Amino acid sequence: MPGFMPGIHVFIHGMANKDVDGRDKSGHDGGSASMPSFMDLALDHARAAGAAGEVPVGCVIVRDSQVIAAAGNRTLIDRDPTAHAELLAIRAATKAIGSERLTDCDLYVTLEPCAMCTAAISFARIRRLYYGAADPKGGAVEHGVRFFQSRTCHHRPEVYAGIGESQAAALLREFFKERRD
Amino acid sequence: MPGFMPGIHVFIHGMANKDVDGRDKSGHDGGSASMPSFMDLALDHARAAGAAGEVPVGCVIVRDSQVIAAAGNRTLIDRDPTAHAELLAIRAATKAIGSERLTDCDLYVTLEPCAMCTAAISFARIRRLYYGAADPKGGAVEHGVRFFQSRTCHHRPEVYAGIGESQAAALLREFFKERRD
Repeated sequence: MPGFMPGIHVFIHGMANKDVDGRDKSGHDGGSASMPSFMDLALDHARAAGAAGEVPVGCVIVRDSQVIAAAGNRTLIDRDPTAHAELLAIRAATKAIGSERLTDCDLYVTLEPCAMCTAAISFARIRRLYYGAADPKGGAVEHGVRFFQSRTCHHRPEVYAGIGESQAAALLREFFKERRD
Repeated sequence: MPGFMPGIHVFIHGMANKDVDGRDKSGHDGGSASMPSFMDLALDHARAAGAAGEVPVGCVIVRDSQVIAAAGNRTLIDRDPTAHAELLAIRAATKAIGSERLTDCDLYVTLEPCAMCTAAISFARIRRLYYGAADPKGGAVEHGVRFFQSRTCHHRPEVYAGIGESQAAALLREFFKERRD
């Protein structure tokens, strides 16, 4: 289970593979390597999405250490351009808890969220955002419009980048390589 | 029925009430004042949303001069922070035509879309975006992140602002005044 300390977070890619509190950035701590992290579960959903022909991105939403929603991308299967993993998980989570605000919830996603999803994360009042690979082409956290830094963003989650980055990036690379070959 | 010419559009608020092709900016042309425009239909959905306690914003999506989807805000009713009129209409439209791309479709919305909705409009490949009131606090077309001007925006619709602006703005003013009183 991830155990990042609030307020002590890694926001820069390319740092050493241990977080500032000594835990592995994949979301495992040293003593429980066999226990899958929430980001591992998000990666499972990314793999399943990729196997179904979707861009391999997965997301889980967690409250009180319990997964309350999980999804992979479904834009092609659903023929819905808004069916990104984050949006699907947010909608499932609000349904699960019966509130349009996910105030005490943390969101784990394998890829830097886009402008649509960063805004949705903000509207949903997500407490912490953990993401894997950076997305220079479409991301909106540390790239592009950097939504959380805009004056029109009225709720900013704590952001932890680079969690499970290498696995998420490898999934995406393989997916796009297969499409090109 | 609106008849704005592609490529000749009004993007600045506060201009005279006639478009460059001589048509009334409300979406009527001079000869058919009794025929409701697509923006009038969007305003009807905004009013219905307001009557249900939602922020009064409405949206319609049009293809080949036919409305293929329409929605008002439903964030509170659905307990879903992503249930903005535009997102609901986009999802309904893609379902209606069986494609995740709305390439030949135009979207009419009574309020300047937010970051979530501008990105969704781009992903859906909407051809033209017509909107009413500007939204300095949450808009993402001419305010905030100005998504369509970002390098991470890979499809830009033609944008026509200020269509039915006064009615849309009056609806929102009344709604928030009632909430304050």
